Amino acid sequence: MVIDVFRATSTIAAALYNGAQYIIPVDAVSRAVEISQEVGGIAAGERDGKLAEGLSHGNSPLEYTKDFIENKILVLTTTNGTKLLHMALANGADDIVTGSFPNLSSVCNYLVKQNKNVILACAGWKDRFNIEDTLFAGAVIDKVKEHFTIHCDSSLMAHNLYTQNQSDLLKFAENLTHYHRLVNRFGYIDDIEFCLTADVADVLPLYQEEKLVRG
Amino acid sequence: MVIDVFRATSTIAAALYNGAQYIIPVDAVSRAVEISQEVGGIAAGERDGKLAEGLSHGNSPLEYTKDFIENKILVLTTTNGTKLLHMALANGADDIVTGSFPNLSSVCNYLVKQNKNVILACAGWKDRFNIEDTLFAGAVIDKVKEHFTIHCDSSLMAHNLYTQNQSDLLKFAENLTHYHRLVNRFGYIDDIEFCLTADVADVLPLYQEEKLVRG
Repeated sequence: MVIDVFRATSTIAAALYNGAQYIIPVDAVSRAVEISQEVGGIAAGERDGKLAEGLSHGNSPLEYTKDFIENKILVLTTTNGTKLLHMALANGADDIVTGSFPNLSSVCNYLVKQNKNVILACAGWKDRFNIEDTLFAGAVIDKVKEHFTIHCDSSLMAHNLYTQNQSDLLKFAENLTHYHRLVNRFGYIDDIEFCLTADVADVLPLYQEEKLVRG
Repeated sequence: MVIDVFRATSTIAAALYNGAQYIIPVDAVSRAVEISQEVGGIAAGERDGKLAEGLSHGNSPLEYTKDFIENKILVLTTTNGTKLLHMALANGADDIVTGSFPNLSSVCNYLVKQNKNVILACAGWKDRFNIEDTLFAGAVIDKVKEHFTIHCDSSLMAHNLYTQNQSDLLKFAENLTHYHRLVNRFGYIDDIEFCLTADVADVLPLYQEEKLVRG
């Protein structure tokens, strides 16, 4: 499971939930532009939290309403999430899904149903640890833990982090470095709220043949 | 600051506190044997939590009592801690110290006095995250935070982890994967208790000219 809470995997959930045909995740901005022209899709994405040059839409889940995205193809490039998805692919994952609070239940139900070994792959920020992705990993663990054997310190800490802060995630988020980047620099408080709300876009994004589709 | 709570940096604190002349940290077991013969020192260390072949002593802080270690030279090789120390050196650290609960106050006082940028370098376990080193990093942050600007999610989480569990570290440690390795497999409960007790060997181990000396 690829996790990039602020905001790639939340945006993927929003777009698929609101009826996007499918999403093509790509690494480079130039590839996003190129592919969007080939397939007649929307080239979207961010670099360092801002709309990347040459792209027509950003990485805010709130941009992808039903009115806008239904039946369209989204070609999405992001700083951290897409990169990790390609890593999962390169490392031979059987199945790849993307997870976020907006689609928490769907991905957890899928994990339990599949009954395979799971790696909760947190994207982080520029190859460093971040809290929000670990927080979501903790939420997943909290929901599926009866069905899995977990013996790993990072899972234990993720679970602790979630259980201790689940009563007010938005308040807790004020401490995070990424919160400061998104809210103080760009004013994305509504994005943060959406990205921390469970099951508001409860869809299963499955990676199949270079596309993310509804599972 | 190199941190390897279970047990390398706790053992370093114990040996220096109890009067070891100095400690030579080395990476390979064969190097430890070789150097100990050159300098007339004690070759000690572990691999996977057990006494490494060819070495005469292990990596338990309780082995290094005053009676045994005073005025002697310790040549120490460990799984994770020594490796990280050499990484710090390779990355051009101005000053290198080793930290553990037994010498918490000494290393914190040193950080404040030095007033330089600090990296709290957690050794982990076989290149993976572990909780105990992060817990100690959190204890350091708790003590020095008024004197530094901290804007990093891993520091925030380490600090949270420590403040939420500081009232009973030994109880909390029962959850850790390393606790199971050390206590269930090897019976090292006394080691764990020592390694989680603040200031019982409150010395400053400074790395100078390939040796750890009392600062």
